[in-house]
Amino acid sequence: MANKIRVTVWNEYRHELNEEAIRNIYPEGIHGAVKAILEETGEFEVRTATLDMPEHGLSDEVLENTDVLVWWGHLAHKAVDDKIVSKIRERVYRYGMGFVPLHSAHHSKPFTSIIGCTGDLSWGADQKEIVWNVAPYHPITDGIPDCFELFEEMYGEPFYIPQPDQLLFSSWFEQGNVFRSGCCYYRGLGKIFYFQPGHEACRSFYNPYVRRIIQNGVRWAAPTVFSGTYPQTGCIHQKTPIVEELKNK
Amino acid sequence: MANKIRVTVWNEYRHELNEEAIRNIYPEGIHGAVKAILEETGEFEVRTATLDMPEHGLSDEVLENTDVLVWWGHLAHKAVDDKIVSKIRERVYRYGMGFVPLHSAHHSKPFTSIIGCTGDLSWGADQKEIVWNVAPYHPITDGIPDCFELFEEMYGEPFYIPQPDQLLFSSWFEQGNVFRSGCCYYRGLGKIFYFQPGHEACRSFYNPYVRRIIQNGVRWAAPTVFSGTYPQTGCIHQKTPIVEELKNK
Amino acid sequence: MANKIRVTVWNEYRHELNEEAIRNIYPEGIHGAVKAILEETGEFEVRTATLDMPEHGLSDEVLENTDVLVWWGHLAHKAVDDKIVSKIRERVYRYGMGFVPLHSAHHSKPFTSIIGCTGDLSWGADQKEIVWNVAPYHPITDGIPDCFELFEEMYGEPFYIPQPDQLLFSSWFEQGNVFRSGCCYYRGLGKIFYFQPGHEACRSFYNPYVRRIIQNGVRWAAPTVFSGTYPQTGCIHQKTPIVEELKNK
Amino acid sequence: MANKIRVTVWNEYRHELNEEAIRNIYPEGIHGAVKAILEETGEFEVRTATLDMPEHGLSDEVLENTDVLVWWGHLAHKAVDDKIVSKIRERVYRYGMGFVPLHSAHHSKPFTSIIGCTGDLSWGADQKEIVWNVAPYHPITDGIPDCFELFEEMYGEPFYIPQPDQLLFSSWFEQGNVFRSGCCYYRGLGKIFYFQPGHEACRSFYNPYVRRIIQNGVRWAAPTVFSGTYPQTGCIHQKTPIVEELKNK
Repeated sequence: MANKIRVTVWNEYRHELNEEAIRNIYPEGIHGAVKAILEETGEFEVRTATLDMPEHGLSDEVLENTDVLVWWGHLAHKAVDDKIVSKIRERVYRYGMGFVPLHSAHHSKPFTSIIGCTGDLSWGADQKEIVWNVAPYHPITDGIPDCFELFEEMYGEPFYIPQPDQLLFSSWFEQGNVFRSGCCYYRGLGKIFYFQPGHEACRSFYNPYVRRIIQNGVRWAAPTVFSGTYPQTGCIHQKTPIVEELKNK
Repeated sequence: MANKIRVTVWNEYRHELNEEAIRNIYPEGIHGAVKAILEETGEFEVRTATLDMPEHGLSDEVLENTDVLVWWGHLAHKAVDDKIVSKIRERVYRYGMGFVPLHSAHHSKPFTSIIGCTGDLSWGADQKEIVWNVAPYHPITDGIPDCFELFEEMYGEPFYIPQPDQLLFSSWFEQGNVFRSGCCYYRGLGKIFYFQPGHEACRSFYNPYVRRIIQNGVRWAAPTVFSGTYPQTGCIHQKTPIVEELKNK
Repeated sequence: MANKIRVTVWNEYRHELNEEAIRNIYPEGIHGAVKAILEETGEFEVRTATLDMPEHGLSDEVLENTDVLVWWGHLAHKAVDDKIVSKIRERVYRYGMGFVPLHSAHHSKPFTSIIGCTGDLSWGADQKEIVWNVAPYHPITDGIPDCFELFEEMYGEPFYIPQPDQLLFSSWFEQGNVFRSGCCYYRGLGKIFYFQPGHEACRSFYNPYVRRIIQNGVRWAAPTVFSGTYPQTGCIHQKTPIVEELKNK
Repeated sequence: MANKIRVTVWNEYRHELNEEAIRNIYPEGIHGAVKAILEETGEFEVRTATLDMPEHGLSDEVLENTDVLVWWGHLAHKAVDDKIVSKIRERVYRYGMGFVPLHSAHHSKPFTSIIGCTGDLSWGADQKEIVWNVAPYHPITDGIPDCFELFEEMYGEPFYIPQPDQLLFSSWFEQGNVFRSGCCYYRGLGKIFYFQPGHEACRSFYNPYVRRIIQNGVRWAAPTVFSGTYPQTGCIHQKTPIVEELKNK
């Protein structure tokens, strides 16, 4: 890919404004922290968008110029406009925009409607987590060891998601839970990577492995060059038999 | 399972009422034809429901007493009430209701929203189809040979569906197309089986292999007995560490 | 299936003969314990076979009359004759014999060669394990709750297996490890279910959930009735175009 | 990846020596033709190896310096030394060497033993094939249209392979067959891409889409940088609890 991957980092941006403790952890907002993670490598052209901007910062112009959309939301999932959600879904399905939901985005409208799930799970106190790499062959785990430790909000099974097309990480939590913490999906022309770390009150976005995984994940989710004809307005009517059509190509 | 599997066969029921040619093929409606297929084995307790019934024939009482919902729709996908679609999705995800969309239901609201896809595909003239069995180990292909022939509407790739959890059938069409014609998915607590044959103007529901596949598919999609606690209203808050909780069990 | 599923439970049967502590836990041998688990339901016709029997108790006659082969081995994987392994693999691939490797069978010749893997993993001290049900829709988890507790030898990630066709259980171990503890695979005409509990020095085969999972797993692995023509001696040469051949059927 | 991907293209190299018609199609041998395909992009450092070289051209030194091994074999699968096959398998499983079997390599020892299958299929006369792209989101299909046409030996279902981790291509053959013609697998640390075109008597290695798919496939199969500790001699004994060990990192 000659040009930079164009990323939009979307954040609900409520915790940071309303809670001093969170603001102290992420003074530029979670979107600012994730932006900095991506800019570190020089491969990405990053902009940010937040809930309270007009159209949540996701105008048609922005979406049409986004290769990968990163999403962080928590308190205000319901406040996200269904029309915007519908546009995001179309960009993923029909244009191959990558989608990288982080942490509590498991319950966000874009994630659950793109993937087809409730996203329900168990959750509990912040505690020690060990993230295990169960797919050491995958580009998203490039440079990641067998396991690494975090201090995170507990997210546990049963996690009501479709079986991932590729399960990358499986996490251990000190109080007895496990969680499928890194999951890849393909939907339409798009790629989706869900990654569990990133609770607002923890500091995971400063962890070097988390940073690398997010960089790898966004690179992986960037769209493939498709030379076919995606049926933007529905099904394709094959009027001439395809065997005949191919003769003239 | 001691008791019979309770099946509701849903049909749009428009072609049969408006077109004599179709009515001649399926005088009891497509729902009647599918009902007969299922009743043949004695394992199923079958009722039918159609678009123009109040609540499309899918009241809460009906849905709560349905183990597997079979769906045939084509012309009137948009006429299906979003509220009913939402209820169907909840029954599949949270209660394990099986869902068996047939033929043109690839574009129906319940299928696309439960699975997470557009369901777009290519289509063309009615022609010879050969259905190949690519999963001879699976309970849905029990009793099915390597391949069998139909005369069907052409449905072709690219078919915009998530990669199936299990691909069962792959079809050849005379004019040059192929199609993933039998696909299994798991979503929430539910099982979904999409099967492509069943165009209103063809006679596939009289084919013995198609009949057997539908019987096998509905049996496969029946819910499993889950002894866990599905979080009906969202996530479960694990207040006591699970290691402590298990000590008291 | 009108008749009983015919199961052969194979055990290395060395620990029980050489170590009194193990013999006290499983006085009839691990094969005897697993046999009792299966006989409990009345659905299975069970025989046992052990390493030191002629042909390891797996003559052609036995294999040809086995629907599902359960396997427990540990110390003596290398002592298993490659010719017998090759026959087992053929029965699975070409005749659909089910295969249920338990615990340390992750490193057995039949498992690694049928599946295509090394089966390498991490292991450690016996400790508390919590088995989480991540596929509550699957017939093997029928009747199993969200989670249950065992005291087991630690088996941990990275576990070098192909991504399961269906991941059913994911386990937590007290000292910081996680493990994909229940995995389904399809190979050739056969079904394979690997299940991790069953260390000789622990008592998991008396746990009611472990027992139910083994019963469910053996039932699931039983062969499907295939009406096709498996190419027993290699590829099928399609001399007449299949479109022509189907005309005469 | 800063350096070039080091590829070894292996060819049985019998048809070209013994049959003038084949030699005329591929005067440098099939290995020469595939080498040229890869060298076209400038990303690969390519060497070739053939059956009749000492150690089949696959000495330890060669294998240890191969990132991706491409394989073409047909008549002489049995002549491949089991010891070399075993070394190839170890390189794939334990060191992440990529493996790209082409066409009749579906029945080769490395493919069937790495993947875990018989590789049996149906085959028939050379005829028109249409290759359909069923995974337009995947890096291997980058730049490939919905479908393209070839003239190839017929390979048909049932194809006895494990369900692919990712199915990329599904092919139509004029005489009534379909075939899963592009399949991705993960095994151990390695990636495997099977691609069906490439019959010695056809000219598919000159087709621009086939060329691009082979280039994409080899790039995809190149090893990921794994920072973990693959257990080269078997399982890892976790002597200290991992939770303790991580404290000292």
